[in-house]
Amino acid sequence: MTEANSAESLLGAHLAEQAGLFLRSLPDVRLGTLRRVGGVLHTYADLLDPDWSRHLREDLAALGAVLGAERGYGRRLARLLGAMDSLTGVEQVPAPRGPEHPDGPGPVGLPGPGRPTAGLLSEHPGAPKARALLERQLTLARSRSHTTALQELGSARFHSLADRMTLLVSDLPLRERQGAHPAETLLRHTAALHAALGAAVAELPMGRAAVAYNGDALHRLTAPAAEGADPDDRPWRQVWTLVQQSRSALEVCGPLLPAARADAADAALEGLAATLERHNEAADAAQTAALAARTPRITPATAYVLGVVHADQRLEVEAARHAFGTAWPDLARSGWLTDSWLARLT
Amino acid sequence: MTEANSAESLLGAHLAEQAGLFLRSLPDVRLGTLRRVGGVLHTYADLLDPDWSRHLREDLAALGAVLGAERGYGRRLARLLGAMDSLTGVEQVPAPRGPEHPDGPGPVGLPGPGRPTAGLLSEHPGAPKARALLERQLTLARSRSHTTALQELGSARFHSLADRMTLLVSDLPLRERQGAHPAETLLRHTAALHAALGAAVAELPMGRAAVAYNGDALHRLTAPAAEGADPDDRPWRQVWTLVQQSRSALEVCGPLLPAARADAADAALEGLAATLERHNEAADAAQTAALAARTPRITPATAYVLGVVHADQRLEVEAARHAFGTAWPDLARSGWLTDSWLARLT
Repeated sequence: MTEANSAESLLGAHLAEQAGLFLRSLPDVRLGTLRRVGGVLHTYADLLDPDWSRHLREDLAALGAVLGAERGYGRRLARLLGAMDSLTGVEQVPAPRGPEHPDGPGPVGLPGPGRPTAGLLSEHPGAPKARALLERQLTLARSRSHTTALQELGSARFHSLADRMTLLVSDLPLRERQGAHPAETLLRHTAALHAALGAAVAELPMGRAAVAYNGDALHRLTAPAAEGADPDDRPWRQVWTLVQQSRSALEVCGPLLPAARADAADAALEGLAATLERHNEAADAAQTAALAARTPRITPATAYVLGVVHADQRLEVEAARHAFGTAWPDLARSGWLTDSWLARLT
Repeated sequence: MTEANSAESLLGAHLAEQAGLFLRSLPDVRLGTLRRVGGVLHTYADLLDPDWSRHLREDLAALGAVLGAERGYGRRLARLLGAMDSLTGVEQVPAPRGPEHPDGPGPVGLPGPGRPTAGLLSEHPGAPKARALLERQLTLARSRSHTTALQELGSARFHSLADRMTLLVSDLPLRERQGAHPAETLLRHTAALHAALGAAVAELPMGRAAVAYNGDALHRLTAPAAEGADPDDRPWRQVWTLVQQSRSALEVCGPLLPAARADAADAALEGLAATLERHNEAADAAQTAALAARTPRITPATAYVLGVVHADQRLEVEAARHAFGTAWPDLARSGWLTDSWLARLT
């Protein structure tokens, strides 16, 4: 065992709690828990047994991808049908925050007062067919993912992962006998992660995104890739990952921080994460619409509507980038992402 | 003749100058001159012979519509091909401000630093066909309008209008013998027009437009009307008309104002007019794309691209509304649209 109040004991307690949550919720798997544990293993890797933590992270990521696919298709379906209803003026019911996604925002909706429901009577002739096509394709993809997820939950890899999570409740495999570190070591690693986040954001085209209606998310009309994210979106997705890791890291070192400061930091990161989640989901939805438009034998009216839906979702991508570009500078100016933040604490 | 420095003499001098410009530029017709004279006749109608000024205004508006159609199709063509090139990553050459539209901004381009040229290599398979379709349809519409415009210039109505413009160089038909008004009368009429502009703007959904990415210009996907503006766009077009009339009115009473004040007002109105012109042109272009998508026997890929182009132009409609919503409050706060502005002067 490690000394109480050492970095290792705080880390072990946090991971034990998360592992317990994971095990108690089985056979349901909480994606948020997978992501949290994976993020913490990554941030504090210097303290942990390298082989063990790398393998666990890889398996957590693989499981998260398989289980996340089904939920992702469900959310994409809700988003695209919501967008179609909004575009054709059908009255919208707010999408419920169901148990499938306790960690994220609702899948549909623009920022601010929300989308108006235009209540128009006339619909475009291609709209019902486009809606049915999207619903059919996404429902099929979701049920295929469901089958794959069930197989995964019966796999040797999943059982091995559950065994390691059980171990984590009682024992954290540390880097070979090195003695305990002071708790403040956790803050140094968190500050390093924040610095990586700041560096990744600095690479984003924020100058353009910060001016409304001036982004370039919409201004491309390429043949959509059959799979994989648009290269243009990739750096934004990477920032989302870093924001999520930063949130998980803050949860670990929360006890070392003044509560008000930890809460403010978490609220700020939560807002950024929600904005980037909207970004990612809208980008995925746009790609789905573009791919659906390549379905053989659809009518031109259907394809036209899918083009409008594609652009509508890319507009949400732009809107999310603009929202991020507006929120980030305040956060960066507050200084808690930097080394000076750490210096003031220690 | 009227007394020098009366309202009537200032108005007469201004209209004589505009009529002279109109006559000297024949057989070319400057649309800006037609609009200016029509606006001035409307704003200062109380001073003028009612039947004469109403008929002249109607004929000026009819001529402007016929001649404007050809130029409008030309600009719409440039806008849509520019949008297509931007969407497919073709390097863009800035559209020239040709002699056809000396009064407006260039037809293509977003506000701010302008559209990035993405320079992508891959194009959507439907893009070349959609581009060719738009080019063919708009070129045809433009050449039909050209024929109609030539007929109009040879018509009895046009000759009658030219006769009345000739009269205007020397004699302004005033409301039946009522004696001359003091020059400040012009300011009162201008203030009334400004009040009408403020009232029309107050009816716009500015609350939504002022929040970026929250407008509802895109959120409708109705079967496009074969002709006529979208009812949703109509109040914005009406505000554009009032802004143009306000500019023309300020030109008349410019000599009564401190030069700095008149210049500032004109610059502000010019900015609003350019923003609303972009709004109107993007709305027209979106409608053109929607109608082109209903061309029989086009491929789904072509229709899909037209859907994206439609949404792209509706996005420009939203961007223009947002820009207007951002610029207007400053102008309104400056107070020169109000009666107190007049009170301070007189």
